[in-house]
Amino acid sequence: MQETNLYTVTIPVMMKALRALDNILDKADEAAREKATERRPAAYFENALLQSRLVFDQFPFLQQIQVACDNAKALASRLAEVEMPKFEDSETTVAHLKARIKKTLAFLETIKEEQIIGKENLHISLPYWSGKHLTAFEYVTEQALPNFFFHVTTAYAILRHNGLKLGKSDYIGGLPLKD
Amino acid sequence: MQETNLYTVTIPVMMKALRALDNILDKADEAAREKATERRPAAYFENALLQSRLVFDQFPFLQQIQVACDNAKALASRLAEVEMPKFEDSETTVAHLKARIKKTLAFLETIKEEQIIGKENLHISLPYWSGKHLTAFEYVTEQALPNFFFHVTTAYAILRHNGLKLGKSDYIGGLPLKD
Repeated sequence: MQETNLYTVTIPVMMKALRALDNILDKADEAAREKATERRPAAYFENALLQSRLVFDQFPFLQQIQVACDNAKALASRLAEVEMPKFEDSETTVAHLKARIKKTLAFLETIKEEQIIGKENLHISLPYWSGKHLTAFEYVTEQALPNFFFHVTTAYAILRHNGLKLGKSDYIGGLPLKD
Repeated sequence: MQETNLYTVTIPVMMKALRALDNILDKADEAAREKATERRPAAYFENALLQSRLVFDQFPFLQQIQVACDNAKALASRLAEVEMPKFEDSETTVAHLKARIKKTLAFLETIKEEQIIGKENLHISLPYWSGKHLTAFEYVTEQALPNFFFHVTTAYAILRHNGLKLGKSDYIGGLPLKD
């Protein structure tokens, strides 16, 4: 899709980033297994990574993934004006987080272009905006997308900070380069 | 501007984020001054923050700001097909970095909507893509914007990791909420 519209700059962009997060989760799983010993199984290190934070008053890795998923489903459901699926925040393992990403991707796949295209002036009101609103265009460009990338990048940063072998390409997730 | 096009989803979005970075730099300056003692002046702590990294093989704060500026001017000049201004990477202080952001914003302001709108299929080729290309649409949505937000978020993360009092609103930079 090479047309710039409210669908093409949101849903496929977030889906790609969620797939990159899914791959990053595999690397977290792998790193935990590599560290495993008889006394401390892989689950011990997996949990340490999921609970790791850059600073004590910021979300840990696990929550960065949960919130990135929530940002994506919220944007999609608000713009398409469909009910937002509820996800319990009950994940405690990499496998659970991968399942949450899978559910999020499945939901994003149900959203059709025509449900979003042209909705620039739709009023979007978040619970904590005390009755005020943004237009959908402002919501996407000033809040939802920057916020989504914030959590994806912070998830990446937490794993890097823990010494995992990740590079920018794990964040970008591949480019459709052509001759 | 409430129309979704290749200009509105790039230039104003990056300008807003650069202004947020500019404010974050003020907070770094303030934090350095607060820590200053007779033996160790503010410049000592300012430099410590500018050289701070989340992990040894990732760019320090100073370079995150430089690269965010470069990402923005590169996207703008490539899409508008105008010469890319050259910035020397000679910054060593917060004031220098604020000047770099100012230069970047001044350049982005020279770019007119009509220089970018409709260029979705322009071929963009980066030096390290060995002759291959992306369309401008792919470049914007899959490489340039995600990469830009990566460096803005990492700059924020480095300061948070150093204990600076920043919140999400310092990253988002204010929302045009309406009744």
